[in-house]
Amino acid sequence: MQHVAPLVKLIEHFRRLPGIGPKSAARLAYHILTLDSQQAEAFAQSIIEAKTKIGYCSQCFALTDTDPCYICKGENRDRSLICVVEEPQDVAAMERTREYKGLYHVLHGALSPLDGVGPDQIRIKELLTRIRLGSVTEIILATNPDVEGEATAMYLSKLLKPLGLIVTRIGHGLPMGGELEFADEVTLSKALENRREME
Amino acid sequence: MQHVAPLVKLIEHFRRLPGIGPKSAARLAYHILTLDSQQAEAFAQSIIEAKTKIGYCSQCFALTDTDPCYICKGENRDRSLICVVEEPQDVAAMERTREYKGLYHVLHGALSPLDGVGPDQIRIKELLTRIRLGSVTEIILATNPDVEGEATAMYLSKLLKPLGLIVTRIGHGLPMGGELEFADEVTLSKALENRREME
Repeated sequence: MQHVAPLVKLIEHFRRLPGIGPKSAARLAYHILTLDSQQAEAFAQSIIEAKTKIGYCSQCFALTDTDPCYICKGENRDRSLICVVEEPQDVAAMERTREYKGLYHVLHGALSPLDGVGPDQIRIKELLTRIRLGSVTEIILATNPDVEGEATAMYLSKLLKPLGLIVTRIGHGLPMGGELEFADEVTLSKALENRREME
Repeated sequence: MQHVAPLVKLIEHFRRLPGIGPKSAARLAYHILTLDSQQAEAFAQSIIEAKTKIGYCSQCFALTDTDPCYICKGENRDRSLICVVEEPQDVAAMERTREYKGLYHVLHGALSPLDGVGPDQIRIKELLTRIRLGSVTEIILATNPDVEGEATAMYLSKLLKPLGLIVTRIGHGLPMGGELEFADEVTLSKALENRREME
């Protein structure tokens, strides 16, 4: 079986995915062989399509297959609010609360001087450009409640408050050290409700 | 994000894989988006290739991309020995011991009257055909040590012993209730060494 080259290759591809060990990779690859050809083709196709059709929104930098994204062009979104998050998947987490009706801005990272990530490495300049367009009155900082996320929130607060904006930090409810992406809807709703203005 | 159709589709495909929950599926799909196009293409291609190039060996019914498979046509395999297993992945498990040098026969299942799986639903007829060709002297029954596997071993033993064959059951060392596919090499080697003749 170690000599069935296409199978070995497929197992290797699965092994490179996050959280998939050698035994899971083998299990997934064998499962693929049990699919009918149509299903396997559809799976392969969906990988290609996701890769080719999805890009970043030119306004908020969320993942999207249209530009601007459905949130940025949404007619019932509150354009005076921007929720700043670290990663594209954080937008999905916020949207699952069904309570937030403003816009987003995805930084694509958080400040981490030790890793060489400064303000120029994440999309802060683009956020300032959006703010200069004038319709925004409040910025909700929803970076992760960890060291880098807190540092990024502090930095942005100091940068944005002088511009006359209300700058709030996502509220209590989010367990410290956790990751926004994996928070449950109730916790996130609570965190949104309890947001406080940055000092 | 729930509205980015290609992403939703990709997440759904991952969710259908065994042992992948909704959060893992999302994590894997987002990971695909971080791959460069070439890697994503290679992954998709390897799914298609595994599906189109891999079939069953016409002799032993193991997975293979050539027919007969590399084991059946292997020059230094002992053609007097056939190890009978339930599933194709069990062949890979046995091969990892590097101690077994005989041939295999994959039943593609085990007897399970309650699920409607009788002797005609698994590849027993094909095993008999191979035995009739004459070079086989010993059959090692390496079905799983669970109810169905034991029943299958008993059935095959009663069927094959009258043909004048040595019929052995894979030995002690395999924990009862376990699955052959996930046994470690040492346990499997031990089980092979301690095989005993069926009563």
